[in-house]
Amino acid sequence: MSTVPPSGTCVYLSGGVGGAKLALGLAKVLPASDLLIVANTGDDFEHLGLTICPDIDTLTYTLAGLANHETGWGRAGETSRFMSALEALGGETWFFLGDSDLAIHVERSRRLAAGESLTAITADVGRRLGIECRLVPMTDDPVRTVVETATGPLAFQHYFVRDRCEPAVTGFRFDGAEGARLHPDVIEALADPSLRGVVIGPSNPLISIDPMFAVPGFVKALRDTMAPVVAVSPIVAGRAIKGPTAKMMRELGLPVSVSAIADHYAGVLDGLVIDSADASAAEAIRATRVAVHETKTVMHDLNDRVSLATNVLGFVDRLRRGADSMLQIASGAAAATWEMR
Amino acid sequence: MSTVPPSGTCVYLSGGVGGAKLALGLAKVLPASDLLIVANTGDDFEHLGLTICPDIDTLTYTLAGLANHETGWGRAGETSRFMSALEALGGETWFFLGDSDLAIHVERSRRLAAGESLTAITADVGRRLGIECRLVPMTDDPVRTVVETATGPLAFQHYFVRDRCEPAVTGFRFDGAEGARLHPDVIEALADPSLRGVVIGPSNPLISIDPMFAVPGFVKALRDTMAPVVAVSPIVAGRAIKGPTAKMMRELGLPVSVSAIADHYAGVLDGLVIDSADASAAEAIRATRVAVHETKTVMHDLNDRVSLATNVLGFVDRLRRGADSMLQIASGAAAATWEMR
Repeated sequence: MSTVPPSGTCVYLSGGVGGAKLALGLAKVLPASDLLIVANTGDDFEHLGLTICPDIDTLTYTLAGLANHETGWGRAGETSRFMSALEALGGETWFFLGDSDLAIHVERSRRLAAGESLTAITADVGRRLGIECRLVPMTDDPVRTVVETATGPLAFQHYFVRDRCEPAVTGFRFDGAEGARLHPDVIEALADPSLRGVVIGPSNPLISIDPMFAVPGFVKALRDTMAPVVAVSPIVAGRAIKGPTAKMMRELGLPVSVSAIADHYAGVLDGLVIDSADASAAEAIRATRVAVHETKTVMHDLNDRVSLATNVLGFVDRLRRGADSMLQIASGAAAATWEMR
Repeated sequence: MSTVPPSGTCVYLSGGVGGAKLALGLAKVLPASDLLIVANTGDDFEHLGLTICPDIDTLTYTLAGLANHETGWGRAGETSRFMSALEALGGETWFFLGDSDLAIHVERSRRLAAGESLTAITADVGRRLGIECRLVPMTDDPVRTVVETATGPLAFQHYFVRDRCEPAVTGFRFDGAEGARLHPDVIEALADPSLRGVVIGPSNPLISIDPMFAVPGFVKALRDTMAPVVAVSPIVAGRAIKGPTAKMMRELGLPVSVSAIADHYAGVLDGLVIDSADASAAEAIRATRVAVHETKTVMHDLNDRVSLATNVLGFVDRLRRGADSMLQIASGAAAATWEMR
């Protein structure tokens, strides 16, 4: 075995709160130049005349050490003077915007209107807040998740925040995805033979990862990449760690299980990280030719985040070495075949 | 003399801080339905993607009892979390926007973008904040004051706030004024025979009142109105009570005196309210056929505001009765002339 520590870029696909936890873990254990975090932008929306990018912001605040640990989103020590004043003016207050948090929305909206790309703005904000790894939107083109419900379609944040995920979900639509261009850094990283691996965070597959997969070329690039693609299950013991994942899966008639997560990612997935609580499901998943790694996946503190990141990377590296061995075997076999001619 | 208290609408022309003080005084002594406050919008500007209307806001906060008494502008007890966060993002921080104050800018900008008029938004905001009198922009069309300086033209707030009025002023331009439509309520009020009077606040004539006068039809309507037009001098004893009025007048080669104020408004003015400190200038002004009322014009507290408002209204009513008497004399003379035929 090589004594050189594993290197190469790790591409990490993330939604907001849950995904951001592991993003921080990865940022702690990887050299900054080896981590490319790809944020879902399907949650983005226009509100009060501002363009708000909840997943990018949650990732930004988390990586910059500014996040509110209690909510998982927004900034620590936030105040609500703006919201109180807005309420007095009869403005829409269902989406909370803290006084400090407002700056990122106002400044981003101004820069977008001035013609800057979301990529450029996100990178500059990250740099100014001390984030060293790359954080990019899945695309610079607007994609907007629409939740199809029993009572009609709802813009994602209307469903998610205003209506508290109450309407029963019948499906999703990712407006704009069809014509969106996958982020060039993602295309380049996935095509790079030295790519270490792709990690799909413990985010909601339906609303955090599927919008990415709806961008043309993303799924094919994941299928084509030589590096392992692993996901961390957001479902633990039949429940979602966070948010409406389980409720949505039930409403769509899916079993709320780690197997359902593996099925959801079928075709792109080489390995699934599941919680030890779900060990009994491992065998069935392995039977679908998806490797399984069991570990503690619930992250309460920074140690948990770092530990899971280390664990996931170890799993990625084992899959890669396995693939390399098989390549060597295949290549040896080819040589043997050649010699046999 | 009539025992019926004076009635009819009083039209009050106002800029920001200085003008707002007397606006509050007038609002305290007049029935709400009898006061129409017309705000300068030449100071308005687009900043951080928001449309900011400093004079409307100062008037709104003052009339609503929310104003910061120390600065004269902004809200009392304001906080600056947004500004700190914006600074960390490298945003423009030369124009202070308090956390509570931001709500009015965000909400107004949203509503303007949605097609509502500045009039409708200002009225709704006022209603929600408990303002009973009418407060209207001089026009719903954008007018933007440009300060011509020795080093080139500057957008008003760049000159006023960013550059702290330091560049030497050579003139002013009111972009958009030529095509702007005077507010219909102003047109109607000035044409109403029952108009009680027009009061020009102790605002900077060059930058708070001249933008209004640059709107086609405003000066003619003031000349044509039957009611007295009086101004309250913003200059007291050769100094401006507030702001750069004196500095600007000097730079434009004007004497910094109450006489220069009377000259500036020549053609529209029936009376000028000056501070007792300037009593010596009264005779020369009266010689130009402008009536003069001497009183204490510097307003430190609410009592001063109410007292000046009462004083100014008394002056207006005396001028009106004087004009009525002259009309009666003229009418009597005409009758006599008729009889002599």
